[in-house]
Amino acid sequence: MNLMIGVDLGGTYTKFGLVTEEGELIAENRIETDSGIPYNVFFARLHSEIESLISSYALGSKVLGIGIGAPSGNYLSGKIESASNLSWPDFIPVAKIMADYSGLPVAVTNDANAAALGEMRYGIAKGVNDFISLTLGTGLGSGIVVDGKLVNGHNGHAGELGHTIAVAGGRVCGCGRDGCLETYASAPGLLKTLIELLQSTHTESVFRDYDYSQITALDITSEASKGDKLSLAAFSETGRILGENLADVVAFLNPSLIVLSGGLANSGSLILEPTQKHFEKNLLDIFKGTVSLRLSAISKKNAAILGAAAMMWEQDLAILNTNYA
Amino acid sequence: MNLMIGVDLGGTYTKFGLVTEEGELIAENRIETDSGIPYNVFFARLHSEIESLISSYALGSKVLGIGIGAPSGNYLSGKIESASNLSWPDFIPVAKIMADYSGLPVAVTNDANAAALGEMRYGIAKGVNDFISLTLGTGLGSGIVVDGKLVNGHNGHAGELGHTIAVAGGRVCGCGRDGCLETYASAPGLLKTLIELLQSTHTESVFRDYDYSQITALDITSEASKGDKLSLAAFSETGRILGENLADVVAFLNPSLIVLSGGLANSGSLILEPTQKHFEKNLLDIFKGTVSLRLSAISKKNAAILGAAAMMWEQDLAILNTNYA
Repeated sequence: MNLMIGVDLGGTYTKFGLVTEEGELIAENRIETDSGIPYNVFFARLHSEIESLISSYALGSKVLGIGIGAPSGNYLSGKIESASNLSWPDFIPVAKIMADYSGLPVAVTNDANAAALGEMRYGIAKGVNDFISLTLGTGLGSGIVVDGKLVNGHNGHAGELGHTIAVAGGRVCGCGRDGCLETYASAPGLLKTLIELLQSTHTESVFRDYDYSQITALDITSEASKGDKLSLAAFSETGRILGENLADVVAFLNPSLIVLSGGLANSGSLILEPTQKHFEKNLLDIFKGTVSLRLSAISKKNAAILGAAAMMWEQDLAILNTNYA
Repeated sequence: MNLMIGVDLGGTYTKFGLVTEEGELIAENRIETDSGIPYNVFFARLHSEIESLISSYALGSKVLGIGIGAPSGNYLSGKIESASNLSWPDFIPVAKIMADYSGLPVAVTNDANAAALGEMRYGIAKGVNDFISLTLGTGLGSGIVVDGKLVNGHNGHAGELGHTIAVAGGRVCGCGRDGCLETYASAPGLLKTLIELLQSTHTESVFRDYDYSQITALDITSEASKGDKLSLAAFSETGRILGENLADVVAFLNPSLIVLSGGLANSGSLILEPTQKHFEKNLLDIFKGTVSLRLSAISKKNAAILGAAAMMWEQDLAILNTNYA
């Protein structure tokens, strides 16, 4: 059996697994992402743990390559570039490091692109040539697929939909600009909206008795599903901003599908319904009925590992550039 | 010598010419676009005029195909679809009609996509793999090139950047929505901005003595170049809105070039400078220095005919689908 290694390098844990061509995760493990130690030490440890996993579960199989999804991973350069939640230097040549250790073809991409590739190969976008995948978590990432291929852009930085302006003069964003979409349509964005509503309305809410600093997006999801009006209003406002912006994305790229995944998408219909409502309402007439907005079905199931492995299955390994500078 | 026919079907005139592989327009002619007569009569006339042009100028040459740029032309369907400035039925199978008459491979696309293809083959985007072309005229059209290929989208309608929302709750648009980019960044948009400034400021202007209904975008260009402060302010505001929106386009698609063409772009630095200023200012840090904003150099020279011909030179004619439904 042929296998790919999928690696999901996150701020807290690095998860990795052995993935078949059909998307079966036959074994997985994880280590802490310790960016307090030098990165070469960390990646040596990751390599050794991957070797152990292969020895234990894949001795009779052939491992063809390693795909890595990482924050600010850049497919074109093979590097992790200025990842804000890792304390390593700005440019980590992760593809080269792991290729040197393993002798295998290695590619890296960012979390959002890995998610898109996972949806295309194993998820709801199977067989779909033109779609956008959004990961709604602590930030908002997007992966763009045009004509069956992931769009990397000129420098490998395409997909920063989270940093397009959704509200002129709106909320301050970590990127230094104001009103970016991810300050609204993300887990922290939902929380900010709830706090704004607590302060600007008289709507009843269990959260009126909370210390604001203790509220999480998961709490809001939980209370909204029990009917808390203010929590529902926060979802509704989040969905309005997201839906309006997605209608613009459709006008620009004419996809047939938009897939939502990530923590906020796991709140299900709480986020999908208001987003859908404002999305449909704002679509240009020519796009009405041509595009669907769906929740990921693999989002909760190690989608990041699957997506990183999918990246490797999707490409011609023989021509993969592993001679990263 | 091998030649392509490029056709620029406009609301008033239909221009056509014989174009070499290198983009030389060796002969051209035009007829009135009379959408008062049945479309099959019109296209029979167009075919016969193209035949005359070939007989007069290209008897020793081989004509390989016909490329047509038309309002609402759809590459995927081969049809002109609901063109608002033509009084024919909603769906005109122009590729099929012209292929039947001529026996040649025929493809159609919209004006903005033809402009992008012209820039890629003969213009400022030669050798550029990831770029966006904007045509700023009576509307705002865009053509998107990713990895050296034009993005058509799922239904052939990609590139409706003019109908993304630039100003929440802004100017009414013909599409039925409010605040679309083309209501600001276009010739009529510039005029609307000037009139707003006439009404909301005390800035001196020659236009204070005009009947508003008599002012044209060309007048504003002319007065701005003579130093009329209000006209300059109208360009500045138009450039601000366009520049801010183009910074968002870069965040989403990471192109290395944006090309401006069309009537408003022909005002040169009057539109380029303010657009550039607000574009640079609003780029995310990772994109600074990676993308240029330029005026088309072929915009004034039959770019639409060249672009329509470029579409044919850019594709494999043997696999072009001429069996349009």
